[in-house]
Amino acid sequence: MDEEINEQALALHKKLKGKISIESKAGNVTPENLPILYTPGVGAVSAYIAEHPEAVNSMTNRANTVAIVTDGTAVLGLGNIGPKAALPVMEGKAILFKTFAGIDAVPICLDTQDAEEIIRTVKAMEPTFGGINLEDIAAPKAFTILARLKNEMQIPVLHDDQQGTAVVVLAGLINSLAVRGLTLAQARIVVNGAGAAGLAIASLLITAGAKQIVVTDSHGAIYKGREGMNEEKERIAKVTNMVCSLGLDKEGCVSGGLTEALAGAHVFVGVSKGGVLTAEMIRTMAERPIIFALANPVPEIFPDEAHAGGAYIVATGRSDFPNQLNNVLAFPGIFRGAIDNGVRLITDEMLIRAARAIAGAVEAPDAEHIVPSVFDTTLVKRVADAIR
Amino acid sequence: MDEEINEQALALHKKLKGKISIESKAGNVTPENLPILYTPGVGAVSAYIAEHPEAVNSMTNRANTVAIVTDGTAVLGLGNIGPKAALPVMEGKAILFKTFAGIDAVPICLDTQDAEEIIRTVKAMEPTFGGINLEDIAAPKAFTILARLKNEMQIPVLHDDQQGTAVVVLAGLINSLAVRGLTLAQARIVVNGAGAAGLAIASLLITAGAKQIVVTDSHGAIYKGREGMNEEKERIAKVTNMVCSLGLDKEGCVSGGLTEALAGAHVFVGVSKGGVLTAEMIRTMAERPIIFALANPVPEIFPDEAHAGGAYIVATGRSDFPNQLNNVLAFPGIFRGAIDNGVRLITDEMLIRAARAIAGAVEAPDAEHIVPSVFDTTLVKRVADAIR
Repeated sequence: MDEEINEQALALHKKLKGKISIESKAGNVTPENLPILYTPGVGAVSAYIAEHPEAVNSMTNRANTVAIVTDGTAVLGLGNIGPKAALPVMEGKAILFKTFAGIDAVPICLDTQDAEEIIRTVKAMEPTFGGINLEDIAAPKAFTILARLKNEMQIPVLHDDQQGTAVVVLAGLINSLAVRGLTLAQARIVVNGAGAAGLAIASLLITAGAKQIVVTDSHGAIYKGREGMNEEKERIAKVTNMVCSLGLDKEGCVSGGLTEALAGAHVFVGVSKGGVLTAEMIRTMAERPIIFALANPVPEIFPDEAHAGGAYIVATGRSDFPNQLNNVLAFPGIFRGAIDNGVRLITDEMLIRAARAIAGAVEAPDAEHIVPSVFDTTLVKRVADAIR
Repeated sequence: MDEEINEQALALHKKLKGKISIESKAGNVTPENLPILYTPGVGAVSAYIAEHPEAVNSMTNRANTVAIVTDGTAVLGLGNIGPKAALPVMEGKAILFKTFAGIDAVPICLDTQDAEEIIRTVKAMEPTFGGINLEDIAAPKAFTILARLKNEMQIPVLHDDQQGTAVVVLAGLINSLAVRGLTLAQARIVVNGAGAAGLAIASLLITAGAKQIVVTDSHGAIYKGREGMNEEKERIAKVTNMVCSLGLDKEGCVSGGLTEALAGAHVFVGVSKGGVLTAEMIRTMAERPIIFALANPVPEIFPDEAHAGGAYIVATGRSDFPNQLNNVLAFPGIFRGAIDNGVRLITDEMLIRAARAIAGAVEAPDAEHIVPSVFDTTLVKRVADAIR
């Protein structure tokens, strides 16, 4: 089936020659409207904004325009394929912004993979945009870039692979745990993958009330002082896998690999690589475990195999299985809310409220309905109302 | 009348909240097309471009997308009003690009006025765009920025205030001189204004065959070794006002102000300030002089006054008088041609051909019809065919 979709995608992209266009909101230029839309009349508008800078947000399209910025270093599951190859994804994201939130989004694919250069370039474009959506930028520099831009810009900045993913996982987990009969604080959670998504998920879950999280990367469970750490992993080690990190070598310290980490856990959240989870490993988890296998397009484990291993709830990033955890659930509403409510800084508290709003859109959650459809027409408003 | 237009412009811009939008060329996203337009199908498109980088121009909108880049330092006649106040002009330009050439143009207003920073930022965006239109950037840094970007980027770069204006002036002059019965080489031409436009006009006219040009700035006629020069003025002094510049202090050396320069001249090209030319000064020019008073919105002299001084042909930048010399005559076709013909570097030879193409669109030029209407539907193709 994927092969067929790939063929259709290649054919359609060749036919369309791109998925977005820039259109006039005032119709075509005519002899009658030219002096009003352009010179000399536009001079009065520019002069007015020069006197009243905030009018740029009411007399131009700036406020409703979001830049989708990438350097192409972490595109889908394809890795560092560069800015040109990232452009079809950014155009796709732009039409999602338009369809779901009515936001005008402009792909900006950068010919640099240097964090400082990316920061400088994005900051330089601030007069043009009402918000910045960072996309598919590799960790660990993605953390630096997001933190710096949040701090140094006067418009909302979101790294969708971090915050958007974390919101959607939290939303799915809220309903999954409710269905399973556990609280966030009670749940033992393993987050597999310590890239941009994994660390942001762990961090947001903790802020939301999770107490028992172990993050695993290719070297195994992360704890304070382990080998192969970077600054961000050291930071997450301070708040996850606490028994180990406190240096208490007793039951509860997870120091092995993913297999060891999963023993007795209630929840697996995979933002790692296709195929790394087996039915065998799921059998060692606690009763009726919750499996979020979010690697795309090939999940950590396919749903049928996960259920064969005893999984109770299975979610993936794919639309062809139940429980699709897709960032489209979150980012359109997050930006709609940030723009409409004049939010300059998107905080974790807002993101947690957004996750609750997404979870709340499912009237009667069950094992196959932990999140709403991305096409739920009430969703954007619910999420937007949380961002204020 | 300008007051009324200004009021209408302010009201319309407030109502529209901006003049451009980003739209989907594939319609709204639906459950059916989502896997093809976005994940997982778009992954195949990205993977394909990663393998075949040139495919970015056929499978995304890149090739047809032009960035309109400004730092807001020389906006219309308003000067350095900054990047936010420049945005309405850039949005206006974007809808001109769309209406006349079907090109998708994205305003990029930069929060820096430093030449190196502008160069670095624009270069960083190369993977996103099929061309760069620099706009309303002050001289002399505009010269450096244009020269560097032309040299260092693999996509066409045009500074419309330099090259676009020069093409339109040359087009108008070709027909004006034909009507007047002079060749470009015979004409004594005064270009008043030594900013981006003035120096580019002088330079292109010389390349096209003009032999007798004097450029004047606020200090008067420019010649080699004069006071108050910059690098670009020194460069133009080598090829204009030659008698002076060669140090020959005899008849033909123009060393005074605009008044002195105009005595006996055939052509005045003003890209300076409203009101600096008088009927009195025109009376000192050669018989049946040609006056291009292009300051906007208030020209160097209004047509009725110019004619009272004996002007034979008068052109302005305004749509409410005959002979509107507007860059819209040139830039849509220049970019349409550059994109469609795969032109990486827009040369002066192409620009001269473009000027001839614009002039050629007027079947029977006379004193009130030296250029076609900007709404001439044959124009873009004529100009585009010249850019190859």
